[in-house]
Amino acid sequence: LVRQLVLPLRTADLAELLELLRPDERQDLVEMLGTDFNPEVLSELDESVRDHVIELLDPKDLAAALTEMDSDDAVYLLEDMDEAEQRLILDQLPASERAALEQSLDYPEYSAGRLMQRELVAVPPHWDVGQTLDYLREAEELPHEFYEIFVVDPAYKPVGTVPLSRVTRSKRPVLISEIMETEQTLIPVEMDQEEVALQFTKYDLISAAVVDEGGRLVGVVTVDDIVEVISEEAAEDIRLLAGLGEESISDSVLQTSRSRVPWLMVNLVTATLAAAVIALFDATIEKMVALAVLMPIVASMGGNAGTQTMTVTVRALATRDLVHFNARRTIAREFFVGVLNGMIFALILGGLSALLFGNEWLGAVFAGAIMINLVVASLTGILIPLGLDKLGADPAVSSAVFVTTMTDVVGFFSFLGLAALILFY
Amino acid sequence: LVRQLVLPLRTADLAELLELLRPDERQDLVEMLGTDFNPEVLSELDESVRDHVIELLDPKDLAAALTEMDSDDAVYLLEDMDEAEQRLILDQLPASERAALEQSLDYPEYSAGRLMQRELVAVPPHWDVGQTLDYLREAEELPHEFYEIFVVDPAYKPVGTVPLSRVTRSKRPVLISEIMETEQTLIPVEMDQEEVALQFTKYDLISAAVVDEGGRLVGVVTVDDIVEVISEEAAEDIRLLAGLGEESISDSVLQTSRSRVPWLMVNLVTATLAAAVIALFDATIEKMVALAVLMPIVASMGGNAGTQTMTVTVRALATRDLVHFNARRTIAREFFVGVLNGMIFALILGGLSALLFGNEWLGAVFAGAIMINLVVASLTGILIPLGLDKLGADPAVSSAVFVTTMTDVVGFFSFLGLAALILFY
Ligand SMILES: [Mg+2]
Ligand SMILES: [Mg+2]
Ligand SMILES: [Mg+2]
Ligand SMILES: [Mg+2]
Ligand SMILES: [Mg+2]
Ligand SMILES: [Mg+2]
Ligand SMILES: [Mg+2]
Ligand SMILES: [Mg+2]
Ligand SMILES: [Mg+2]
Ligand SMILES: [Mg+2]
Ligand SMILES: [Mg+2]
Ligand SMILES: [Mg+2]
Ligand SMILES: [Mg+2]
Repeated sequence: LVRQLVLPLRTADLAELLELLRPDERQDLVEMLGTDFNPEVLSELDESVRDHVIELLDPKDLAAALTEMDSDDAVYLLEDMDEAEQRLILDQLPASERAALEQSLDYPEYSAGRLMQRELVAVPPHWDVGQTLDYLREAEELPHEFYEIFVVDPAYKPVGTVPLSRVTRSKRPVLISEIMETEQTLIPVEMDQEEVALQFTKYDLISAAVVDEGGRLVGVVTVDDIVEVISEEAAEDIRLLAGLGEESISDSVLQTSRSRVPWLMVNLVTATLAAAVIALFDATIEKMVALAVLMPIVASMGGNAGTQTMTVTVRALATRDLVHFNARRTIAREFFVGVLNGMIFALILGGLSALLFGNEWLGAVFAGAIMINLVVASLTGILIPLGLDKLGADPAVSSAVFVTTMTDVVGFFSFLGLAALILFY
Repeated sequence: LVRQLVLPLRTADLAELLELLRPDERQDLVEMLGTDFNPEVLSELDESVRDHVIELLDPKDLAAALTEMDSDDAVYLLEDMDEAEQRLILDQLPASERAALEQSLDYPEYSAGRLMQRELVAVPPHWDVGQTLDYLREAEELPHEFYEIFVVDPAYKPVGTVPLSRVTRSKRPVLISEIMETEQTLIPVEMDQEEVALQFTKYDLISAAVVDEGGRLVGVVTVDDIVEVISEEAAEDIRLLAGLGEESISDSVLQTSRSRVPWLMVNLVTATLAAAVIALFDATIEKMVALAVLMPIVASMGGNAGTQTMTVTVRALATRDLVHFNARRTIAREFFVGVLNGMIFALILGGLSALLFGNEWLGAVFAGAIMINLVVASLTGILIPLGLDKLGADPAVSSAVFVTTMTDVVGFFSFLGLAALILFY
């Protein structure tokens, strides 16, 4: 009965089901399906679930399945395996396929070389549409699907590209060179996948030619894999900004804890730093406990304002909307936003606290600290990610620590410092 | 000279240039280009820049340009204009095009109906490949590009689909019904774009048929527009989690400030709430200032742990990795992660503070508060977004407020409350 329900599922639906099941249920299902299990499901699974299912399969079946897949999917499955497992499977493959996959695995992780498939359609410019159609009808080793035909010179360097729809709309005697687009986006094999995705987004590409250092056509990247990259990279930034490691909803308690402890440890250090600033002023707080009541507000307003600016900046850097050309102008804008919002909240909070505590000097100190902290928040919110980016670091990774540490330390220091100076001097 | 540099630019490059320029420079450039300005650039621009450029153009030229575009791009430009501007341009269009665009604009914002283009290729199942190719070669009103051919019955209901590459790989006498895929993803015209994007991601689609309530084929959504949706929706979640409105790097100081003040205002209220909790214990703090030094650490550790869980949960809800089926198991997991991480940091921080302040009772109170707050953080981090989602609210919008308010309030209350109970009772 379960077989009858599961067999007609589309690959992606079966993958979803496997991700939702508990490990023991998952094992039962895979074992029950046996040879009916379609290994194409593997490339749709989360990493931890994929590892689990791969363990359940016979390496021989897996190798057979790999030879049927487009090379990018085969590489995708191989790249996450450990050395020994990889060897075990590669050794089962025919020599030519093994060599091709090994070469792909030699490209750096997250590069276009890993993302591309080697199966593609390339024709010389002097062919006509009729010859091309005949070739497509006869050829054996074509990709499962393709959306454009690459035009190459005798050295296999791309000279143009023809969208497949244009081929079908042209009469048989028309020359490929007449209908090809000479302006095309070529992807170097070493390009980072994030950059590849930006090119696809910018130029609305469906597929793009990948070229090696010599400019020769070696593969094609298709947009369905780029969709995956875009989701992944956005998810990565969201995770990094919240201080999370690689984790997914199907991870265990221990895996999850391990992914989260490092950031909490960092936060422990920075929070202790902020506490040390407070400790400097313990005598001041002893004289007026209201300071202890108000100081978290200064830190929290600064932290939030800083996070806002930092988030916009990290995102704009990722989408290349913030570049060298407009950096100066954007910094100036953030500064003025900080000043404006600082004035707004200094007035509100200063006024309220002066009334509430019946002490206009306390109100003035509070307002001054808010003003200072919101301006500092704006500036660190943009300067820290920009600086990290300039140093070649990923601004999403560590901006948040620096920004919130700054706003905590500056918030406590300016508030308690001003209080010590003005209220008790 | 500038003309010579700008004219050969690809549409997307010109768009990028326009976004980077100051408004006055932008105006100069558009005016200089005059009739050489390609209106297709408009659909690549950020909203605020697009509004600006549209103002600079003659409505007549704009209307002429719209008739040349695929209908989805025309709708994209029209939908953000105000009523009067829209009318001005629609009235310039031929009746049939106007009616089609008006109908598209009647679909809800962010629905498949807005996203789809009406230009598509549909053939009956009894045609053969030869007839189809001849039709493609002769037909006038085809989309600029297409990747699959829809197969429809006489009532124009989809019965299958053929990837274009399969058409080119088949001989002329082969029937369409023999090579068509009968399993296809049909998109209802009212479906939200976020859901459409999930379907594309899940099933690795390049294009998909859009059907009306009667099941008739009315349009096609293509993946290049979905790529845009995915980036936008991810950016929206990143922005919402950081408390930002719709804002882009090309906005002015006032626009930016306006986008950020609401969230800071919310934070003002919640921070004040947390301060009120501290004020409850002012007598306790007066007796031991060390409490004021340590209390921000309790709140900050809780806030970070809560943000981690909340971010994972919001993301998993958005990608449908967290659904009713695995909700209970995931809540249990988060609870245990909270307990585990709570124990780790309670031990570290309790131990350190006991040593540092030479007061093991203070250490015990601190450890207890950390433990309580990290468990509360885990639970609210998952329960709040799940609850909001169940109520039909977007969990990305307001989870962060609730979670950090909870961890602040619980952090201060449990630490100062335990201190009052244990240290001074
Ligand atoms: Mg685009
Ligand atoms: Mg692929
Ligand atoms: Mg795929
Ligand atoms: Mg990356
Ligand atoms: Mg990144
Ligand atoms: Mg842009
Ligand atoms: Mg829009
Ligand atoms: Mg997919
Ligand atoms: Mg389109
Ligand atoms: Mg487009
Ligand atoms: Mg949305
Ligand atoms: Mg959303
Ligand atoms: Mg999934």
